[in-house]
Amino acid sequence: MKNLVGACVFGQSGGPSAVINSSASGVFTEALKQKNITAVYGAAHGIKGVLDENFYDISQESTEELWLLRNTPSSALGSVRYKLKDPKVDDSDYKRILEVFKKYNIRYFFYNGGNDSMDTCNKISKYLLASGYDCNIIGVPKTIDNDLYGTDHCPGYGSAAKYVATTIMELNLDATVYNVGQVTVIEIMGRNAGWLTAAAALASAVGGCGADLIYLPEVPFDLDKFIDDVKLATANNNGKCIVAVSEGIKDKSGAYISEVLAAASANKDNFGHTQLGGLAASLAALVKEKIGCKVRPIEFSLMQRCAAHLASAVDVEEAFQAGQLAVRAACEGETDKMVVFDRQLISGVYKCVLGLMDVALAANTEKKVPKDWITANGAGLTKEYIEYALPLIQGESKAPLENGLPRFAKLAKILVPKK
Amino acid sequence: MKNLVGACVFGQSGGPSAVINSSASGVFTEALKQKNITAVYGAAHGIKGVLDENFYDISQESTEELWLLRNTPSSALGSVRYKLKDPKVDDSDYKRILEVFKKYNIRYFFYNGGNDSMDTCNKISKYLLASGYDCNIIGVPKTIDNDLYGTDHCPGYGSAAKYVATTIMELNLDATVYNVGQVTVIEIMGRNAGWLTAAAALASAVGGCGADLIYLPEVPFDLDKFIDDVKLATANNNGKCIVAVSEGIKDKSGAYISEVLAAASANKDNFGHTQLGGLAASLAALVKEKIGCKVRPIEFSLMQRCAAHLASAVDVEEAFQAGQLAVRAACEGETDKMVVFDRQLISGVYKCVLGLMDVALAANTEKKVPKDWITANGAGLTKEYIEYALPLIQGESKAPLENGLPRFAKLAKILVPKK
Repeated sequence: MKNLVGACVFGQSGGPSAVINSSASGVFTEALKQKNITAVYGAAHGIKGVLDENFYDISQESTEELWLLRNTPSSALGSVRYKLKDPKVDDSDYKRILEVFKKYNIRYFFYNGGNDSMDTCNKISKYLLASGYDCNIIGVPKTIDNDLYGTDHCPGYGSAAKYVATTIMELNLDATVYNVGQVTVIEIMGRNAGWLTAAAALASAVGGCGADLIYLPEVPFDLDKFIDDVKLATANNNGKCIVAVSEGIKDKSGAYISEVLAAASANKDNFGHTQLGGLAASLAALVKEKIGCKVRPIEFSLMQRCAAHLASAVDVEEAFQAGQLAVRAACEGETDKMVVFDRQLISGVYKCVLGLMDVALAANTEKKVPKDWITANGAGLTKEYIEYALPLIQGESKAPLENGLPRFAKLAKILVPKK
Repeated sequence: MKNLVGACVFGQSGGPSAVINSSASGVFTEALKQKNITAVYGAAHGIKGVLDENFYDISQESTEELWLLRNTPSSALGSVRYKLKDPKVDDSDYKRILEVFKKYNIRYFFYNGGNDSMDTCNKISKYLLASGYDCNIIGVPKTIDNDLYGTDHCPGYGSAAKYVATTIMELNLDATVYNVGQVTVIEIMGRNAGWLTAAAALASAVGGCGADLIYLPEVPFDLDKFIDDVKLATANNNGKCIVAVSEGIKDKSGAYISEVLAAASANKDNFGHTQLGGLAASLAALVKEKIGCKVRPIEFSLMQRCAAHLASAVDVEEAFQAGQLAVRAACEGETDKMVVFDRQLISGVYKCVLGLMDVALAANTEKKVPKDWITANGAGLTKEYIEYALPLIQGESKAPLENGLPRFAKLAKILVPKK
């Protein structure tokens, strides 16, 4: 535990979310207050900005814009998908990072992202330690996928879940307008963990008008059972059915259903072209073929991860606090840790308590939806999930309106002269 | 001008919007107050509900639920796409309507919809007049397409435009996250008029981060020019470009580009299968083929017409007032009219003044975006459009939150016993 004096760098990594910039706001406003932190830098495009010495001087940003970051979606500093190599195989990136850190006297490094980003934190931390260079490193969790190990939930999840649940409620009402049956198939992000798709259950269980069938990657997906499920659901509901499905559903053998259906369609064409359109389109086409009803495939696409106008106030605030805590903890000498959330129920009221965990534990580990939170038919969520997720989507927090549109932060992004 | 005493029927028709139920709320709350109106009925699924005598007794709905309708998306009574025949060819539906109106002593008929619905109003009105049956009929405009003739704008447009502009701002920020070029192609509703796609210009001109290229059906679309436009836009902006495109863009010969591209793709397959995925997917595939950059097609799908959580307060209020005025005007003896909006600028401040117009003028006429509001390059909107649209997206009005999700109206929908 060392109290260091020097500059800090904050970087954003991986896919953006509605609240990733709220964590940036928390890191920056806190870092600017700390006496031991002599300069506050934002790395352009995550670790690539460190390697390229592209640092924004955050002290030159206005307090107002740093505050507006709380409600600005996407990664304001730019993000990156760059996985550092194993230093035993190739340590050139690490050498370069050490060189840059020395040159700018960087003694604090904060990295905001998911599994891969925590792996990056861990590897850099271990390398610097072995090199005898003192630098306190704290990871700030972020992922709409909610799949980080060791934390009750992740910043970004609550807002994306609120978008999914609210939008499915609206689509449910829209789908019942005409007096004809329709099967709506909605594709939701999540390659390996079904947390975000599970939020469709909030629309039904809490909102009263949501998805009838919900399929997560945690349960092997069977095409015949799917058609039977849809037949049963439509029979019970005048031919209407809303299906929510994770992009990452797989069959028993572990093959992605999206790829299985694309291959089957290519075979039909005798040609090898796979169809455009994703999983929702393929499943809807299958329903049309097997059942013959009207279908409507819908993809929530990038909207589900950037809909800051529908952010959860709980999520925005927790993301901000995660950033603040990272800075405070590092200044108190903590390193090689990730900020984690613990849930406490005080007289039944949700409270999020922030803490720290060894970052190595989070690196490259995925947390999936517990099997016993999935209903026996494999196409729904139990009340345990509803109780888990509901506190995370509470309240509203969004950018002020200017001329009827959100006023997002506009950072000056003044580059630090290269040394 | 006759002051009639009897029951009223209100029906919803065509595609829903975020505020169509706000007009229903205006009609119902006003009709329940009127002494000359002896019963207030809601027709299930529009004119089909009249033909089938499926009427909901609105007097049995609670005041609170009727108020919540203001912020509940979709058509609460159910909608229909049913075009009445020309009575000279087949008057059986009209005979049946007259029979039902007589049986229930229906003396007021309010119909909420677009061009076709105004045609329905007009035909019924003319038939009843010729039959000597007194009934005051007023059309209430509604369409996210904003293409109704004779009114400055239509209820539903402002909210859909606000969704389009806000969401494109968020997607613009999301698209700039990685330090690589990407062309995002966003498909927006509008088969013949480009009003809704034009709202993408609000994101750029007002929000500061919107679409770079905007294509409306009003301008013939040329695939080669499109690729040139994208090349130029990406060259000026680090390979990044946001394209907003109406689903209804057509080539010089009037053929839908979506169909042209689907046919071209089918030819390539030597087989005749058209690709799944709509216009956005096809245009994105073309950009990828011709320019070789990363692409991302996005469809706003049904979300753009049902996103009540992002409704414009101006739109919600005007839709409500349109419903109110229809009832008041009918009770004062007006008939065969449609409610229209006139825009007044009082010291530069927008004011919407409601009035009436002969419904025949609105029937089957489409109002398109004026050619001189489209920029010379055919891929943008002038400041005249911005000044026109901006007042329509102001303010927020949405359902109260319960457990973090919208509390939409839940009508009891008690059917009137058939006579």
